[in-house]
Amino acid sequence: MGKYVIGVDVGGTNIKLGLADARLNVIDRTKFATECFASDPTFLINEIAKQISSLIERNAISDRNISGIGIGLPGIVDHSKGIVRFLPNISGWKDIPLKKILEKKLGIRACLENDVNLIALGEWKFGAGRKVENMVCMTLGTGVGSGLILNGSLYRGYSFSAGELGHIPINEEGPVCGCGSYGCLESYVGNKRLVLRASEMINDPDISLEKMHALAKKGNRTALKFWDEAATHIGHALVGVVNMLNPQRIVIGGGVSNNHEFLFKTIHAVIQKKAMKVPASVVKIVRAQLGNDAGILGAHVLVHEHK
Amino acid sequence: MGKYVIGVDVGGTNIKLGLADARLNVIDRTKFATECFASDPTFLINEIAKQISSLIERNAISDRNISGIGIGLPGIVDHSKGIVRFLPNISGWKDIPLKKILEKKLGIRACLENDVNLIALGEWKFGAGRKVENMVCMTLGTGVGSGLILNGSLYRGYSFSAGELGHIPINEEGPVCGCGSYGCLESYVGNKRLVLRASEMINDPDISLEKMHALAKKGNRTALKFWDEAATHIGHALVGVVNMLNPQRIVIGGGVSNNHEFLFKTIHAVIQKKAMKVPASVVKIVRAQLGNDAGILGAHVLVHEHK
Repeated sequence: MGKYVIGVDVGGTNIKLGLADARLNVIDRTKFATECFASDPTFLINEIAKQISSLIERNAISDRNISGIGIGLPGIVDHSKGIVRFLPNISGWKDIPLKKILEKKLGIRACLENDVNLIALGEWKFGAGRKVENMVCMTLGTGVGSGLILNGSLYRGYSFSAGELGHIPINEEGPVCGCGSYGCLESYVGNKRLVLRASEMINDPDISLEKMHALAKKGNRTALKFWDEAATHIGHALVGVVNMLNPQRIVIGGGVSNNHEFLFKTIHAVIQKKAMKVPASVVKIVRAQLGNDAGILGAHVLVHEHK
Repeated sequence: MGKYVIGVDVGGTNIKLGLADARLNVIDRTKFATECFASDPTFLINEIAKQISSLIERNAISDRNISGIGIGLPGIVDHSKGIVRFLPNISGWKDIPLKKILEKKLGIRACLENDVNLIALGEWKFGAGRKVENMVCMTLGTGVGSGLILNGSLYRGYSFSAGELGHIPINEEGPVCGCGSYGCLESYVGNKRLVLRASEMINDPDISLEKMHALAKKGNRTALKFWDEAATHIGHALVGVVNMLNPQRIVIGGGVSNNHEFLFKTIHAVIQKKAMKVPASVVKIVRAQLGNDAGILGAHVLVHEHK
């Protein structure tokens, strides 16, 4: 058994690669812009393989010292067959046997997983969800997603699409969502929607979430109200999750969670007020611990899970 | 190993008992009113034990031919320790070690489970969920509940309260629910709420769901609209469930589901319209098959699961 693991995080904007050693230190990283290779899956796959090779070479690691490559992708992934079913934000990716292609190119075992599931695996084994049997790992960013650890293992669902927490409807008459439905959580607290809402509340053409954070820090009432409103929406979706799944822990990560000091208290209060007593009294809401390394460490879990 | 199983369904109105043979035929049944013994858990437990004994006696079965007793209870049950944590609708039940008490009284192994979980186990193994790894078994009655089969086993949650589908909020500004929250599914489609809504829509002091069914059958537009409205609410909660859990099947049972001919089409349409394509395209919405026997057959599964 080798000791290094390579994690690849395929995103709509960047592809990030990391090399982790057996002690879970990420000893080298690299990234490149998805856009430059996104016109065709073949280009992108070739570039991923090339970057993996150069990561291995420049660290002078022999292939047999590598346990495997774990790849997180933003879409529907059949992990058991190693096929990428569909990526909504990168064109041309439909039923691509990425596992086989990469293994043939590189001679190293490759495992695929949905990107948020990979983050959930990382946080579960090495981060904010250690020793927990039932947890929801929520990511707040451009999209809102989650990975579910239930009865001590990753729950993927029947067609590998479980965990779409951003598309829990919280208001039957809510705004149209990118998914085509109405009143989904993401239609309130997806990054772009938050910026839009901020610009409705504050008269500043260059308003950003960073600015809203800074304003809230200074005690600006409108900014505090803005975050409170966002937290209330998140809380409402989580009330359903808490009542339905009775998790021990909810781990919240992703860019928007950097505003945790203005979010978590209200999220917690909404759950305590509106969820049922038994599940509300046991659930802990905590911040993700691994930041950008969650996916790479999740790749570590994935690669060893499939031994 | 014995071959008979005794199932006990503890309800707020009646306690039903059934004796099932190895071929899963329910060969004898009995029931009694909960109310007469509800003043103290000891009375109720004594009566349950007495009724079990007489069921065994009158069928002339020796104790060693009985695999066990499976008991479904309407509340929070720690199945592993055999303790009833809390029953919201039967007074005095808090942390009662029912398993131990019954086993001591009867000399037969007893297993406890939440009542809806027991129905889910029955439908999963012998009813509408056969051969399915991921299913949601929803019950529509006075309350709205569900049992979850995930990754091929019953999912109970961290403190045994998972599956509270009736308390998924579908409208942030919805009506007050019995649980203290707002806009829960149950606050729209719990039995009593449906009757109340029917009486708002139709001018008849004795309106009932049976009458609304009969009216709909005759093509009465208001009655059809009434069922359509109920189905839409159910559909909205299920959109969240479908997006979150990506189940292969949703099995719907309970009294209100007798109106399936006016409910299922709309539920299905709402899910197809509002849930995400991948999970919506695979999920099947089906009616429960086992009716009142689901709990007894679930007891069969439970008793043999714990061998």
